Amino acid sequence: KVDGDRLWDSLMEMAKIGPGIAGGNNRQTLTDADAEGRALFRMWSEDAGMTMGLDRMGNMFMRHEGTEPDLDPVYIGSHLDTQPTGGKYDGVLGVLAGLEVIRSIRDMGIRTRRPIVVVNWTNEEGTRFAPAMLASGVFAGMHSEDYANGREDADGKTFGAELDRIGWRGDEEPGKRPIHAMFEYHIEQGPILEAEGKEIGVVTHGQGLWWLQVTLTGKDAHTGSTPMTMRVNAGLGMARITEAVHRIAMDHQPNAVGAVGQANVYPNSRNVIPGRAVFTIDFRSPDLDKLTSMRSRLEADAFEIARDLGLGIEIEPVGHFDPVTFDPELAQKLRSAADRLGYSHMDIVSGAGHDACWINRIAPTVMIMCPCVDGLSHNEAEEISPEWAKAGADVLLHAVLDAAET
Amino acid sequence: KVDGDRLWDSLMEMAKIGPGIAGGNNRQTLTDADAEGRALFRMWSEDAGMTMGLDRMGNMFMRHEGTEPDLDPVYIGSHLDTQPTGGKYDGVLGVLAGLEVIRSIRDMGIRTRRPIVVVNWTNEEGTRFAPAMLASGVFAGMHSEDYANGREDADGKTFGAELDRIGWRGDEEPGKRPIHAMFEYHIEQGPILEAEGKEIGVVTHGQGLWWLQVTLTGKDAHTGSTPMTMRVNAGLGMARITEAVHRIAMDHQPNAVGAVGQANVYPNSRNVIPGRAVFTIDFRSPDLDKLTSMRSRLEADAFEIARDLGLGIEIEPVGHFDPVTFDPELAQKLRSAADRLGYSHMDIVSGAGHDACWINRIAPTVMIMCPCVDGLSHNEAEEISPEWAKAGADVLLHAVLDAAET
Ligand SMILES: NC(=O)NCCC(=O)O
Ligand SMILES: NC(=O)NCCC(=O)O
Repeated sequence: KVDGDRLWDSLMEMAKIGPGIAGGNNRQTLTDADAEGRALFRMWSEDAGMTMGLDRMGNMFMRHEGTEPDLDPVYIGSHLDTQPTGGKYDGVLGVLAGLEVIRSIRDMGIRTRRPIVVVNWTNEEGTRFAPAMLASGVFAGMHSEDYANGREDADGKTFGAELDRIGWRGDEEPGKRPIHAMFEYHIEQGPILEAEGKEIGVVTHGQGLWWLQVTLTGKDAHTGSTPMTMRVNAGLGMARITEAVHRIAMDHQPNAVGAVGQANVYPNSRNVIPGRAVFTIDFRSPDLDKLTSMRSRLEADAFEIARDLGLGIEIEPVGHFDPVTFDPELAQKLRSAADRLGYSHMDIVSGAGHDACWINRIAPTVMIMCPCVDGLSHNEAEEISPEWAKAGADVLLHAVLDAAET
Repeated sequence: KVDGDRLWDSLMEMAKIGPGIAGGNNRQTLTDADAEGRALFRMWSEDAGMTMGLDRMGNMFMRHEGTEPDLDPVYIGSHLDTQPTGGKYDGVLGVLAGLEVIRSIRDMGIRTRRPIVVVNWTNEEGTRFAPAMLASGVFAGMHSEDYANGREDADGKTFGAELDRIGWRGDEEPGKRPIHAMFEYHIEQGPILEAEGKEIGVVTHGQGLWWLQVTLTGKDAHTGSTPMTMRVNAGLGMARITEAVHRIAMDHQPNAVGAVGQANVYPNSRNVIPGRAVFTIDFRSPDLDKLTSMRSRLEADAFEIARDLGLGIEIEPVGHFDPVTFDPELAQKLRSAADRLGYSHMDIVSGAGHDACWINRIAPTVMIMCPCVDGLSHNEAEEISPEWAKAGADVLLHAVLDAAET
């Protein structure tokens, strides 16, 4: 088993970097805080005898050598970046549990046939630069490097320029590493494991997603002196489309969700009818037909809403992946490990997107989840117990050792 | 008559300070650009032989002496601050036409019995610091100085600190000046004069207003992994209240308007259900009963929407004035002047709020309007013709001379 205290201490230590305003973290990708978090992870990994590889997307690969160095390695990966008002565990747990697996293996004097590589994938969250899972997506061949480098944040800064600025761009070509298997350990970010009283979720599937960025163009005008009939109100259009997103998701129950997370009106002045609105829709379902149907109904509704109000409309997809089926053999290794260790477990579908969703397209991949309190995530109050953190890490250790011998 | 070319040149010169991004202006109150605009107006006024008074709210009083200096002066006032994406004429026309009246009087060698004071009122727009017409409101005894000094912008900077920072706080106690009469000349900001083909609007009434700032509190949560039934979505609440504002205004037609101009969700991240939304509602009507009815219906609807969604709600009034009736005698002076000069005119209701609405409570006050193209204002594309600008200034000159003799 792993050293649960050491894992917890590392989580708390990392959480000091990029503190939030309410007990969580703001360590958004490619900020100075991200650079600091990376440096700490590198130091810890090198102290544990690992050597670093760094690719042109800033993905960090910390390698623990195997007895047969030429065999394809087993990967353990997740992300150290956070939401602007994020929790201390989302992503971080998976990276630091990978580190803890290596630390434990060394403590126990275990040698594995295959090398084990612990990965920190760049820009998983997708808040600063859409889409989410950007750098694992490049690694998996889903996006070009140019596409990634050109993504812009709200201030017009690009991913490429910011990666250079923080000094974490490597030389290695993304995607050129052979992968025998990849494991991602993550908090559930939903309420199911806690409600069912299970310590371990074996993630067999992941929801698919569409992110649609909508731009509505109306006409800035005075809120007082412009008659109701002369208004071309982009904010009212945004309100109607936000309601449509909710209605469409409800019409596709169960196993479908939809919301508008990012919403901006311009010029955002109390006495100006908004002449422009820019916002992002997030639709998800594990069922491809539902996902497709939600998108097409939204497009139809949004165009009709825009036409009714006289608004110009553009809908740009800024993130997409199809529903995912993870590797059944690796999932079975997780169940066996959990049984062996005496942890309760159940199969589960991931509601969130993860780097594992992309890596799954190029190598056998699976995910483990632990519960989180009230299913709350993307909130600074996100919480897990040290026991939950350790249980998943123990299962990860056993499954990785298993995979590293085969 | 005034010198229309000189008036137009001054308008174009002032518009160079705080240029916008689309041909208009961003000279928001208490910014460096505002300070620069004030300095230019002071210089021009002093060149025209006027002397400056400055009160503790930064209101600038440029005095042209009368032959009987002890008589209460006639005031001409409006504002030099603009919207973030504002036009070149909104407010500015009224101040610079006042200056042009004095320049013309001097050119013609006319001496008036009463002094004439041209005023630039601070923070008329209310975009940076709510409410609008803040400093004329203090002058009229509607707000305390402490209230004004404590108003905060989006960055948490206060009105008081920013007024000190730009160096335009004077010593004079606000509201201590006697006023014989006040005239405000402004662009219409609506479509009526242009549609009716009239050069001059004699403003007999002004709409009343409620600004209500709504804060909804839900729970930040993951857009993907949080089931629809567990969401407490403040952004959805904002959308529903935005629609309610529109519906309520439509139900109070004619002579009522409503919109949401400022709208923010937090943390404003694509994959986070907004846990907080803050937005401002703007309701107006010339009819006090309608104004009151819109506010109370909105409050009822908003509380119900919040309850349905499980949201916390706070509604804070951040701006209010009742419908205004301007001074009938001064209005008659405007009609007589327009007739004498051969300009077409009609009576009109102001859709926007103006400093004149506050000063009207403490002294006889009236407004003159000129048309603006397509009724468009609070938009960088706001436009008027030099002929329109001059017509109103001519009427202003005659009416002011008339008032300054009586
Ligand atoms: N796990 C996680 O929160 N990833 C961010 C991408 C997403 O929105 O699902
Ligand atoms: N005239 C003008 O636009 N004033 C700003 C205050 C208001 O919103 O009416």
